[in-house]
Amino acid sequence: MKKLLIGILSLAAVSAFGAEGMWMPQQIPSLAAELKKAGLKIDANRFADLTGNPMGAVISLGGCSASFVSPHGLVVTNHHCGFGALQFNSTPQRDLITNGFLAKTRDEELPAGPGSRIFVTTNIKDVTARVTGSVAASLSNIDREKAIDRNVKQLVDECEKPGGVRCRVASFFEGAQYLRTTQMEIKDVRLVYAPALGIGDFGGETDNWMWPRHTGDWSYLRAYVGKDGKPADYSKDNVPYHPAHILKVSTVSVNPGDFVLVAGYPGRTFRYRTAAEVANMQSYSYPSTIKYATDLNNILRDLGKADKNVEIANASRIKGNDNVLKNYTGTLTGFNNFHIVAQRQKREAALAAYIAAHPQAAKYKDVMNQMNALEQQATAHEQRNTVLGWIVRSSPMLAQSSTIYRLSLERAKTADIDRESGFQQRDWPRITEGVTRAQKGIEPNSDRAGLRYFLNESQKLPSGQRIAPVDEAITKAGGVEPFLDQLYANTKIGDLAQRKAMQDETTAQLAARNDAMINLAAAISPLSLDNESQQKEIGGAMSRIRPMYMEALRTSSGGRLYPDANGTLRITFGQVQGYTPRDGVVYTPLTTIGGIMAKNTGSGEFDAPKAELDAIRTNKTAGYIDAHLGAVPVNFLSTVDTTGGNSGSPTLNAKGELCGLLFDGTYESLGSDFVVDPDITRSIHVDAVYMLWVMDAVDGAHNLLREMNVPVHFGNGASASTGR
Amino acid sequence: MKKLLIGILSLAAVSAFGAEGMWMPQQIPSLAAELKKAGLKIDANRFADLTGNPMGAVISLGGCSASFVSPHGLVVTNHHCGFGALQFNSTPQRDLITNGFLAKTRDEELPAGPGSRIFVTTNIKDVTARVTGSVAASLSNIDREKAIDRNVKQLVDECEKPGGVRCRVASFFEGAQYLRTTQMEIKDVRLVYAPALGIGDFGGETDNWMWPRHTGDWSYLRAYVGKDGKPADYSKDNVPYHPAHILKVSTVSVNPGDFVLVAGYPGRTFRYRTAAEVANMQSYSYPSTIKYATDLNNILRDLGKADKNVEIANASRIKGNDNVLKNYTGTLTGFNNFHIVAQRQKREAALAAYIAAHPQAAKYKDVMNQMNALEQQATAHEQRNTVLGWIVRSSPMLAQSSTIYRLSLERAKTADIDRESGFQQRDWPRITEGVTRAQKGIEPNSDRAGLRYFLNESQKLPSGQRIAPVDEAITKAGGVEPFLDQLYANTKIGDLAQRKAMQDETTAQLAARNDAMINLAAAISPLSLDNESQQKEIGGAMSRIRPMYMEALRTSSGGRLYPDANGTLRITFGQVQGYTPRDGVVYTPLTTIGGIMAKNTGSGEFDAPKAELDAIRTNKTAGYIDAHLGAVPVNFLSTVDTTGGNSGSPTLNAKGELCGLLFDGTYESLGSDFVVDPDITRSIHVDAVYMLWVMDAVDGAHNLLREMNVPVHFGNGASASTGR
Repeated sequence: MKKLLIGILSLAAVSAFGAEGMWMPQQIPSLAAELKKAGLKIDANRFADLTGNPMGAVISLGGCSASFVSPHGLVVTNHHCGFGALQFNSTPQRDLITNGFLAKTRDEELPAGPGSRIFVTTNIKDVTARVTGSVAASLSNIDREKAIDRNVKQLVDECEKPGGVRCRVASFFEGAQYLRTTQMEIKDVRLVYAPALGIGDFGGETDNWMWPRHTGDWSYLRAYVGKDGKPADYSKDNVPYHPAHILKVSTVSVNPGDFVLVAGYPGRTFRYRTAAEVANMQSYSYPSTIKYATDLNNILRDLGKADKNVEIANASRIKGNDNVLKNYTGTLTGFNNFHIVAQRQKREAALAAYIAAHPQAAKYKDVMNQMNALEQQATAHEQRNTVLGWIVRSSPMLAQSSTIYRLSLERAKTADIDRESGFQQRDWPRITEGVTRAQKGIEPNSDRAGLRYFLNESQKLPSGQRIAPVDEAITKAGGVEPFLDQLYANTKIGDLAQRKAMQDETTAQLAARNDAMINLAAAISPLSLDNESQQKEIGGAMSRIRPMYMEALRTSSGGRLYPDANGTLRITFGQVQGYTPRDGVVYTPLTTIGGIMAKNTGSGEFDAPKAELDAIRTNKTAGYIDAHLGAVPVNFLSTVDTTGGNSGSPTLNAKGELCGLLFDGTYESLGSDFVVDPDITRSIHVDAVYMLWVMDAVDGAHNLLREMNVPVHFGNGASASTGR
Repeated sequence: MKKLLIGILSLAAVSAFGAEGMWMPQQIPSLAAELKKAGLKIDANRFADLTGNPMGAVISLGGCSASFVSPHGLVVTNHHCGFGALQFNSTPQRDLITNGFLAKTRDEELPAGPGSRIFVTTNIKDVTARVTGSVAASLSNIDREKAIDRNVKQLVDECEKPGGVRCRVASFFEGAQYLRTTQMEIKDVRLVYAPALGIGDFGGETDNWMWPRHTGDWSYLRAYVGKDGKPADYSKDNVPYHPAHILKVSTVSVNPGDFVLVAGYPGRTFRYRTAAEVANMQSYSYPSTIKYATDLNNILRDLGKADKNVEIANASRIKGNDNVLKNYTGTLTGFNNFHIVAQRQKREAALAAYIAAHPQAAKYKDVMNQMNALEQQATAHEQRNTVLGWIVRSSPMLAQSSTIYRLSLERAKTADIDRESGFQQRDWPRITEGVTRAQKGIEPNSDRAGLRYFLNESQKLPSGQRIAPVDEAITKAGGVEPFLDQLYANTKIGDLAQRKAMQDETTAQLAARNDAMINLAAAISPLSLDNESQQKEIGGAMSRIRPMYMEALRTSSGGRLYPDANGTLRITFGQVQGYTPRDGVVYTPLTTIGGIMAKNTGSGEFDAPKAELDAIRTNKTAGYIDAHLGAVPVNFLSTVDTTGGNSGSPTLNAKGELCGLLFDGTYESLGSDFVVDPDITRSIHVDAVYMLWVMDAVDGAHNLLREMNVPVHFGNGASASTGR
């Protein structure tokens, strides 16, 4: 494939140079001098070549990042990114979540579950002209949004036509630029190895987002393709994928001050959101999500206490909610600690002063007012829409019904391009997989308990925020409880075969079933569609104004600018560094296995496997001791700029070797989706040396070590924490 | 007065030299070389001279330590040591506890409350020969104990005969040595100044025992004497006491690595207790105290929520229990972390090996067995006696009744020397003061609620551990609740005038009152006396064996030995130093006022006064900035070896100036009453510079700063946090 060299962006910076910045790969050559100064020993230009080394080895799992570490398609990512595969393969009798898993041979590798994907970015192309260049300024806002949407779909369709790839057109710099990414889509993904939960999630929710940390947050997958080397659905006959490039795993721990670079797929940041938008997040969105996720998790946890099957069914949802909870709670603290709204107000005041002082900037004069007016419009029904969202989210059965019902509406459209994104032909196979995958999380009693809570919440909404179709349904049934009785007594949506059948039916066929859950989804549908339409209206207006806002920010300041995270491939670099979380306390940047012993309680969240504790107690550590620490390292802190989606990203050292896996940020960093504070913002990585040590001395994953071409020190007679 | 030079002890050490050691002042000259090496700039011999400088300025408050800081008897100690005086002078209308207090003139100074004392140690004399030298080896254990007790009382009586002094004969090295201390007893103590609770107890229970810390734990008292310069009861005509020596207060903050020395009155340590004794503390004494103190405090806290008067009445008890709770909880952790029982077992095994290998040590052969047998005997009824103790402790009214009843028994004895320690003539005035002082804490509803809980606990005791008199009383009344009804309906013990009258009555007169509380005290009395007798029996046996055990330990090892803390004047030295509480975390040794801002929540335990927050916000700090920190220091850590009773101790710098006040230990140090770990064990001090800054910039205590001869930087227009 041809070498990818996209025109370097020449945007002015609003942020000081440093560890802040989720840079687009094509921006990296312009940062070569800074990277060299920071300690990078290899040619910075290599990071712009997506099909070369090392970037050709950096992959997305959709929601997580990962990398190839062997020529046979072996992939390393976080434990929490492989969690779904562990859940999919777990039963009360064979609890892989708790005990971990190790395939000693390829035959023992397990399907990672429907919908598991590996995406390899192969091309990034600027398509701005084709997305917005042809859109007439005279169009109404909603028509403008629809025109942009149509152009985007067209670009995706063209790109995917050859097959074997997924394409996406993403907005950068708030709509100022559109880039199309092409990703090879590997569909046969298998679970190879994950340590026991007491390593992979050591510290659990208590330690999540926390430092000091001692979590072995890794798991291994393998990419399989057809015998022709092309992506194919799961088949016994598939063969391991042979990536063009792999990352060499470092056997040497990082030290304080060392250069590190992270390449991965950060999901979303809000660095360019306005003061009004941030203020609404602080006062409503975050607090309401915290309340609802807390209450839902309490309900699900209680139900799981008595029944292991229920516990397993709800595990993934609970884990997801917990993660959101700690993130949101910390971010709320960050809103206060970093005075984020005040910082934005200051930025906007400075911008206003600049505009007032520069006649040529007069065109930006009304930008802030327009954006603020749109923000008011967008949040006018937020209470109603928040509760409605949770009603669907709290019930996997209703969520499935809604998806299937919507699919029937979209499928009825004749032209694929008219179908809503997410429901086009290209999306149907993923929807099908989702229908199957959902079965693991469907547990009617938990479903009903969660839905009950949010239906009751809907009854507390003030007038002007009521959810009319829900009100009507409840009134008709004579209350929440009778409504739930009817709902769960008269639905087949929980039955996988029935659900699969429904998925292919027309709206009329679905209606003819008179299935209570489908009926509820149908009743809610018009309101959802109306909300979507309003969002498009606002989106169209925003797509005119936000690029102007970015332009104004760029014009009013100097230096480079990086775009907000949007799920596309990015590079961030910095150094291994601790921080001072508060007066009188210093967090040092590396933890050691001694800390595992100190934290281990032998149960609950701090329950390291006996094999690991034995290895620590008996100093079975030769070959893994870091000279600086005098101990085996576990996790380390760095100044790199990351967010959700970066999980599993390879952390590279100055030589471009994998020296760790990014897996978390610190609690004090949690405002960093909005503002980066170089003194405080830190990312957390698992040290590659810890991973190798556990694989060697604890789990006996010697087959994988050999496959990765790293030395095995304890090849004989090692006991394993996995597969108990 | 003559210079005090007691023969230097030449005991072998069982501990490595370092910051460990609560040294007797007379041992200090033998440590001169080490002190110099550690950084002391003044002559070490000065610390053996109790009437010279600086030791002449170091005083005891009975339970706390303190020091003179002006020629006019001004005393500085901890806020929590002056808390009783604040409580005594507080009313719901004038809440000195919350708002603090500052006497701008001597006329405004307030009596610190009955029983407040200042003790100035003037002499320490070795009286071992007179205590145990004449006791015949043939005596029974109980007679031996009685003989020792009689000798001690005789020595005290002789010593106190001239008047104006309190004397005490204390056992050192587990009874191997007896020293008699003579203390001038100043009885007119007045409250001069305490900062607001939001400074003096900033952080409250949450931060208690914790680092990093930001507590302004100081208060000021003044010693008054009669016009003749001799101790006298409170009188308006009394005049300030003029101490022969005072401590100069340093205006320069300490820095990491600086030499520091603490002189004070540590209460009790268990460094020489056996493995069996420590194991029983770990398995029973500590857990049971934690349970009971927790439950009692929950009861008292609930009752205080609705009524400010109730809250004030119980404040001191709750605070005391909370302090015990955190201490005991941390110590329990320390038992595990430091493997204290295992360490003792190791020490005892080493001793056994030594004895087996050395024929001349054969006499020690049975020492451990004998001590272990006595320990078993001593704990045979520990459940019964623990609950009995809490029954009395939970009810201030029953505690007063018990004291008054016992006093009537002891007063009946003709010879004062036959009276039990604590009930001799010399103790009567203090008992009288206690009877008055108790009134502040008597609140019948709280009293009943606490007593109810422990009476119910007594009903759960297993057979063999039952409290017969309590069982009988409850059975007779027909249950706990009817018993309580009768108890509180038929007692006048809560009435101060009645209680004062009771205090002077004979046992027969008390019985004739038919007061229900007195009757309960009388019913419990025989069991208490029997317990005392058994303790004496065991004490007599132990007094033969423990000195042999110490001798064996001394013989089997080399170097200096310091005695366990016993409430007598001690000196400990070390340096300003942080520590690593856990993997990945370093605690730096100084905190700053910036940390107050960060912790302040504006309510509850973290509620710094507005005047302080304003002073921090407006950088009203000139003259108090530490160059090393670039900020005003607040608290610091050091390696000195301290325990309860050391609170309020002056911390001296290398020049012998007061550079801080010892007020706490860290949570991780809490096993240090048993074992000192030089890497972990730390004491917490308030920096003198913080105290001076608050007095100057926040509280406007300029009169006191001038009295202490330190510069005033903010003499005009300073607002005050106190007296709101």
